[in-house]
Amino acid sequence: MSNTVIAIDAMGGDYGPAVTVAGLARAQSARSAISYLIYGNEDLINAELKKHKALAAISTVIHCDVEVPMDAKPSVALRQGRKTSGMWRAIQAVKEGEAQACVSAGNTGALMAMSKIILRTPTGIERPAIAAIWPTIRGESVVLDVGANIGGTASQYVQFAAMGAAYARTVFGLKKPQIGMLNIGTEEIKGTDAVKEAAELLERSELNFKGFVEGDGIGRGDVDVVVTDGFTGNIALKTAEGTARQMAEYLRQAMSSSLLTKIGYLFARGGFAALRTRMDPNSSNGGMFLGLNGVVVKSHGGADVDGFGTAVEVAIEAAEADMLGEISRRIEKIQALLDDAWAESLD
Amino acid sequence: MSNTVIAIDAMGGDYGPAVTVAGLARAQSARSAISYLIYGNEDLINAELKKHKALAAISTVIHCDVEVPMDAKPSVALRQGRKTSGMWRAIQAVKEGEAQACVSAGNTGALMAMSKIILRTPTGIERPAIAAIWPTIRGESVVLDVGANIGGTASQYVQFAAMGAAYARTVFGLKKPQIGMLNIGTEEIKGTDAVKEAAELLERSELNFKGFVEGDGIGRGDVDVVVTDGFTGNIALKTAEGTARQMAEYLRQAMSSSLLTKIGYLFARGGFAALRTRMDPNSSNGGMFLGLNGVVVKSHGGADVDGFGTAVEVAIEAAEADMLGEISRRIEKIQALLDDAWAESLD
Repeated sequence: MSNTVIAIDAMGGDYGPAVTVAGLARAQSARSAISYLIYGNEDLINAELKKHKALAAISTVIHCDVEVPMDAKPSVALRQGRKTSGMWRAIQAVKEGEAQACVSAGNTGALMAMSKIILRTPTGIERPAIAAIWPTIRGESVVLDVGANIGGTASQYVQFAAMGAAYARTVFGLKKPQIGMLNIGTEEIKGTDAVKEAAELLERSELNFKGFVEGDGIGRGDVDVVVTDGFTGNIALKTAEGTARQMAEYLRQAMSSSLLTKIGYLFARGGFAALRTRMDPNSSNGGMFLGLNGVVVKSHGGADVDGFGTAVEVAIEAAEADMLGEISRRIEKIQALLDDAWAESLD
Repeated sequence: MSNTVIAIDAMGGDYGPAVTVAGLARAQSARSAISYLIYGNEDLINAELKKHKALAAISTVIHCDVEVPMDAKPSVALRQGRKTSGMWRAIQAVKEGEAQACVSAGNTGALMAMSKIILRTPTGIERPAIAAIWPTIRGESVVLDVGANIGGTASQYVQFAAMGAAYARTVFGLKKPQIGMLNIGTEEIKGTDAVKEAAELLERSELNFKGFVEGDGIGRGDVDVVVTDGFTGNIALKTAEGTARQMAEYLRQAMSSSLLTKIGYLFARGGFAALRTRMDPNSSNGGMFLGLNGVVVKSHGGADVDGFGTAVEVAIEAAEADMLGEISRRIEKIQALLDDAWAESLD
């Protein structure tokens, strides 16, 4: 069993090393042979590592002066952080084969831009996508793209489906994940031309395509993988997060409305704690960048220690389960279908 | 005070007259002078009206043999239901001035197609839109378009903003409703070209434009009116509905997990009942069709008696508050801005 190395951009996110290093200490691996390359301000990182002896023993700190600001535009981040920033160098470690995956809670646009420039997309994939793990009533589903691209062509959606299937296999262990295309109705006549054309191609593919899924089908867990473009996916994801917070606020108000409800709350505390855990976006934290020659995981910027730890676990899993190999096998299988569709479009 | 007449397509929705007629009986009006024209199967309608004497006294039943199936494509619905269906005739009553608004719980695509053909769009409006009332932490907001159109141009979004402002003034009584454009970030560099261009135009308009809003800003109540295209809006709306149901299911599971949580639930019943009311999509039921020469309200097909009653109340309010006049005044005010933008695009 070889050692898996994970590169960490320690300065990203709203809290920096206080959360990222503690999150590393929290991350669980099925294997014991994990080590970390931690990029960022070494004083801050070492101060945190002192609190986690076991983690310190398997970590190497690489000092970087430059940090990518959370709110910088990708172009500015690239100008300021190319080659020198912790974010860049953590991705570079994956490119050089020094690490098998990289995790950052930093600026999403900058992380995607740097990842694309350093790692590039493999043959057969036009664009990378960001895949989210979405908690559902049945369990969890993969939703992609949640923000890398605006719009998309039919062949790009089919590639997203293949990558999503590979990811679902890696993280959920599903052999034939069910795929759905996000649309505004389940009838074939609805949706944009690209969405309808993608559905036709997916019907003919070897993927386990179940047809269109509406917005309320995501949380119901209608399928294991939901395919959409980054604009719609991002808005759906944030709308769901907002609605969950809204419900939590309604619940808080309802439970503090009278003496009886307050007493009820005291009795039911255990249930409410379980509810909060399931509603907590941190428990399924870790946006996976798919479609690159390397594993890059984006943690939520506001993630807490558990949230960052979950993102690291996702990275370890993807590295150890050979997600990249699984993606390239699935992309290869749909290649002939996409080639035919492209040739037909030339007629 | 003149009499307000509302035309009702009684056969639409999942339950027909049993819900629609009972919903009419439930609808409250600030004014007493309301009467109804009820279109559909007279035997079924009269059987329900017998249970509601006061409603029967202010209702006229117009028998229609033809019903528009809930799942028919708009083109099929038009072929089968043109002139003869209850849906068509209820809209026609608005066109003829016999009613000031029309309500249907029927097939959304068919209702929009018939409304557009019968009522047409007024000068200065390119496309109608469907506006939803969205419950937020602060109160309620208007979100449009939630399903009439896929995609949109900058000038169409600006028209949606003006119509949404007029609607918010009508239903919420706000003089200067705050407008936001739904986007995947609040920075100016993000989003589609049409969305960015619309934001620039809205900045220069007389509307109270607050910039971009992300998915989680809708339920937080960041603005009073959220503008988006029908594809994104529909997916956001259904995702929020799905998430609310998911949270309710988590809550149910959490409250039945142990004896203590069950006891807590008994004490807190009043709070949970209040919570269910706030989470109930029926309480803000009524998708308003904006951008037509007439008021058409679409009730949720699965609405219960209270839900359909709320949709009827929305129709009465829009008719009595002269929403159409408010829309045309606001559209007139943005006309010069859109004309200039259009002229610039010719340069």
